[in-house]
Amino acid sequence: MSATRYAPLPTPFRLQRGGVLHDGSIAFESWGALDAARANAVLLYTGLSPSAHAASSAADPSPGWWEQMIGPGKALDTNNLFVVCVNSLGSCFGSTGPASPDPRSGRRYGKDFPELALEDIARGGQAVLAHLGIERAHAVVGASQGGMVALAHLALFPGGVRHLVSISGTMAAKPYAVALRSIQRDAVMADPAFRDGDYPPEARPRAGLSLARKVGTVTYRSAEELDRRFGRSPSREGRDFAVQDYLAQQAARFADAFDANSYLRLSRAMDLFDLAAHGAPPEVFGRSGVESALVVGVELDHLFTVEEQAALAEALRAGGVDTTFARLDSLAGHDAFLVDLTTFDATVRPWLAARSP
Amino acid sequence: MSATRYAPLPTPFRLQRGGVLHDGSIAFESWGALDAARANAVLLYTGLSPSAHAASSAADPSPGWWEQMIGPGKALDTNNLFVVCVNSLGSCFGSTGPASPDPRSGRRYGKDFPELALEDIARGGQAVLAHLGIERAHAVVGASQGGMVALAHLALFPGGVRHLVSISGTMAAKPYAVALRSIQRDAVMADPAFRDGDYPPEARPRAGLSLARKVGTVTYRSAEELDRRFGRSPSREGRDFAVQDYLAQQAARFADAFDANSYLRLSRAMDLFDLAAHGAPPEVFGRSGVESALVVGVELDHLFTVEEQAALAEALRAGGVDTTFARLDSLAGHDAFLVDLTTFDATVRPWLAARSP
Repeated sequence: MSATRYAPLPTPFRLQRGGVLHDGSIAFESWGALDAARANAVLLYTGLSPSAHAASSAADPSPGWWEQMIGPGKALDTNNLFVVCVNSLGSCFGSTGPASPDPRSGRRYGKDFPELALEDIARGGQAVLAHLGIERAHAVVGASQGGMVALAHLALFPGGVRHLVSISGTMAAKPYAVALRSIQRDAVMADPAFRDGDYPPEARPRAGLSLARKVGTVTYRSAEELDRRFGRSPSREGRDFAVQDYLAQQAARFADAFDANSYLRLSRAMDLFDLAAHGAPPEVFGRSGVESALVVGVELDHLFTVEEQAALAEALRAGGVDTTFARLDSLAGHDAFLVDLTTFDATVRPWLAARSP
Repeated sequence: MSATRYAPLPTPFRLQRGGVLHDGSIAFESWGALDAARANAVLLYTGLSPSAHAASSAADPSPGWWEQMIGPGKALDTNNLFVVCVNSLGSCFGSTGPASPDPRSGRRYGKDFPELALEDIARGGQAVLAHLGIERAHAVVGASQGGMVALAHLALFPGGVRHLVSISGTMAAKPYAVALRSIQRDAVMADPAFRDGDYPPEARPRAGLSLARKVGTVTYRSAEELDRRFGRSPSREGRDFAVQDYLAQQAARFADAFDANSYLRLSRAMDLFDLAAHGAPPEVFGRSGVESALVVGVELDHLFTVEEQAALAEALRAGGVDTTFARLDSLAGHDAFLVDLTTFDATVRPWLAARSP
């Protein structure tokens, strides 16, 4: 069963860096009901790899990637909020992306899919809101890449959002994150099965995707967490260490599910994003019309550092946005928002509840 | 010109994990003069990748990897010390390793080179001391992998060393370091040119070695240093970022020089080393007869954490060794001992000078 719905992209859809898509669409799921004033929508942007299935529903009872955060009485409280999660443009879980057929040729876009910008993903989110007849979102929420897309959304659609929740995002990636992502892309491209992006669906570059995900897995968590969980315990086979089994599991799950060209486009879009391309960040936030913002950062996040969250909160305040900055302690590092849900619930729930539409 | 000399390994040479080598040898270089009592030798173990060329000399005037630390009046003061640096057994810069010919077959060992332990490298260092007629070293010095080998040396040769200088080593690697090294090895092995270790010398797996080194380069330094050096500056070609040029340079230099099978053996030997295999570390240090130790750690070293250095210093003290623990601040992270040489000189020089033989 699937709860996925689709919103059409404007066609032709001109991408930020020059490409054009025809007859594209954005996959989304929703929870709760839109109120009569169409004023209670929360737009949720995902990290690089998840689908729009953020939570279960009657139509799809399988648990979503933010199951504990979305539902009646939860942080994104569907008793009064209408939560909409979009699959990013360029991804491979229903939205138009490299694995989709190009309607002009009937063949998969594959390596010919245009270069992607996070702004394009935000335009995809806006297309979903337009499809649902929502002029102004009550809030936009995003974590990791989704936090960056949320900022792009504010920059592109002044007056379109009342409140912002940014979790472990950034206004522009630092060279440490850029370096790691470039290595992950190198790993995918070095896989001979990648064939310069021209791989058939039945022979995808699984080895390259696995290696990329292993690099991600090590950097998404903290060294402290790995030490507490695994120490020097041996692997099931005995020759290696348990931490290597963990990497292999995470990598296999990702390589089974993700399209390599999608991965490359989304990864590079994160490197290239720079909010300052839209103007000085305080001015961008001033123009955005956002009333209040919650910025959440995690001390042990080395990929999107807590200093980057502090800088974002400062820019929001300088732009006149009423900003709450929450520094969280979590051994889970960058992945904390997927793991330490009690902490995140305690941070996000009261903040959103105080801003009930 | 080369300053490399060779010491024979005992033959047959039985390795810790079961293999045997015949007619092996260890490459080394030395600086300064051995005193009449043969009591002023400093044995220097390297990190995973350097050769024995730690400093220039009349026979080889090219700068060595620790040029600023070795010489008259320097931290390893050749006015009164005889400094001997060994190329690790299993490496590819003169010592017997996978790229060496197997005297029984005349062909390179290649993939058939036996599994290596850091203890084997320490036995190689001891073979060099024996070759030079040195019964007891004044000091053993090692950084990174060399720091771990220095601990193996103490465990294997009680009474063989008076003083220890351990820089950013560890008694046993943590899962974060193990995970990263396993990914680096995966990258090498995934390169089709690796051919399960059976690559010809003229078609080595350069892409895999490059990728492995890129992962290393990112983790050897601190995110803060990368940010200060590169920020979001564009690459020379403009499409990418300067930090990616830096990774590519470091990777190319390594891939040009290093043998893949050597890399795999040395990397895995670091994962498997555990000083506790020789007994409780305080007892090992007590038995070792070491009089005093200098343990140096760097705050921003995520690969060999400062907490691991603190634990090492504590175990040495518990074993009755007069121990100095220096926590250094350096943005260079794990690589600080190769980069922040003023700081290292100021730490190591007075400590060794106070223990002049």
